[in-house]
Amino acid sequence: MKTLSESRCFGGTQGVYSHASEVTGTQMTFGLYMPPHPTGAVLWYLSGLTCTHENAMTKAGMQALAAEAGLAVVFPDTSPRGDAVADDDAFDLGQGAGFYVDATKGPWAQHFKMESYITEDLPETVFAAFDLDPERQAVTGHSMGGHGALTLAMKHQGRYRSVSAFAPICNPSVSDWGRPQLTAYTGTTEPHDATLLLEDRGLDAPLMIDTGLSDQFWDKLGTEAFLAALVRTRTPAEIGLRDGYDHSYFFVSSFAAAHVAFHAEHLA
Amino acid sequence: MKTLSESRCFGGTQGVYSHASEVTGTQMTFGLYMPPHPTGAVLWYLSGLTCTHENAMTKAGMQALAAEAGLAVVFPDTSPRGDAVADDDAFDLGQGAGFYVDATKGPWAQHFKMESYITEDLPETVFAAFDLDPERQAVTGHSMGGHGALTLAMKHQGRYRSVSAFAPICNPSVSDWGRPQLTAYTGTTEPHDATLLLEDRGLDAPLMIDTGLSDQFWDKLGTEAFLAALVRTRTPAEIGLRDGYDHSYFFVSSFAAAHVAFHAEHLA
Repeated sequence: MKTLSESRCFGGTQGVYSHASEVTGTQMTFGLYMPPHPTGAVLWYLSGLTCTHENAMTKAGMQALAAEAGLAVVFPDTSPRGDAVADDDAFDLGQGAGFYVDATKGPWAQHFKMESYITEDLPETVFAAFDLDPERQAVTGHSMGGHGALTLAMKHQGRYRSVSAFAPICNPSVSDWGRPQLTAYTGTTEPHDATLLLEDRGLDAPLMIDTGLSDQFWDKLGTEAFLAALVRTRTPAEIGLRDGYDHSYFFVSSFAAAHVAFHAEHLA
Repeated sequence: MKTLSESRCFGGTQGVYSHASEVTGTQMTFGLYMPPHPTGAVLWYLSGLTCTHENAMTKAGMQALAAEAGLAVVFPDTSPRGDAVADDDAFDLGQGAGFYVDATKGPWAQHFKMESYITEDLPETVFAAFDLDPERQAVTGHSMGGHGALTLAMKHQGRYRSVSAFAPICNPSVSDWGRPQLTAYTGTTEPHDATLLLEDRGLDAPLMIDTGLSDQFWDKLGTEAFLAALVRTRTPAEIGLRDGYDHSYFFVSSFAAAHVAFHAEHLA
């Protein structure tokens, strides 16, 4: 692991690091915020379409709250990158759009292994390099990253003590943000659809979701289907439908405090 | 004035607007955060080299605190822009590097009127469009914007009720970030040097400054000279020399709460 930069931030350290990932076969960059008085607990923040490790690290406003709670926050990239890595002209396919699945199809199969990256390779690197507690992990994410948080939590039950999402894509089987990409990567959508996974497997961790009612991508999120599934499956959840908020980081940062507090409580 | 976007943020509205500026002769873009319960008080946030209206708006973390304090925050651009506007290949001269002065020299004289823009044109537009109180203005800024905050406050005594700066350039006459640019724009540096202005005119508003002791641009800031001038002139100030912090927004956001609270107190 190589240190690209470290900046003091709210008394802790906002670092940017790179490492060679075995599963993606590429060099991967990630951000990690280490609070001034770490408790060992760690929150994974999965970002949305077009984002790198950097966007949430600079815009989501997590550090002030993580510093108070003693929580480390990891900001992974959203896909493998590089000239040798498959890509597409569309912003929502290929580099910057990994959708947190392991691709098995076409040109994507070689490097796009984001599920394994987030749940195996990156944790291995992080827990080897930093004094953090693998028994106290939580996951959150925004948009495509909210899809990642929900689906990885359900695919890897027991790994995350709490789960949250900001404006998650949560019924991708019927969304332009999901169906084309998951089909291109894996040939199917159902196993990667939070609504269907919830009906199929349930979720054994506390859940918090916030979505803006003025989200300009509302039609792509599938919020209604996911809420219906929560009700049908009697899954405990704290759900905020937020008047006037859109899909931007102005929305995410407005509710970041509540999400960090939620995770801190369950990681204590 | 044209609305480019409005996003709900901490219960208020983060807007981006554009207007035709008479003094710069260009279309100018600015951000304005309106808190949910505005008191009418307004804080001007002047950004640093290479920044547009957007950087601080998305990275400085001012909105959460401004929302609590009922403070509006304006995020102006750092220079006129456009194909017809003079520029230079250097990142620290021309577009993105207005240095908050009115240029009188060379190709810059036509559009680079940032002192007049920040103190005349933009306030006129803002106070016409928003229900804010011209009697309750404060100013802050980062790096080149800290230079702007300090010098504009001293050149326009009585305008700002309180003044603060994050890692300001405060002795530009002897800095690579100041001497070449102020000379190119105005043929001189002394009238635009916060240290010299302080000795010459003093400052009649409460002052807060924070600078990181690991600032990678420490040599360009002139912190020592300015602190010496504060002492010599017996100017009241709250000064933070912050262990381990660098020049980034990770530093700015870490101390944003203290600056907003400082201004809110003096604008109350």
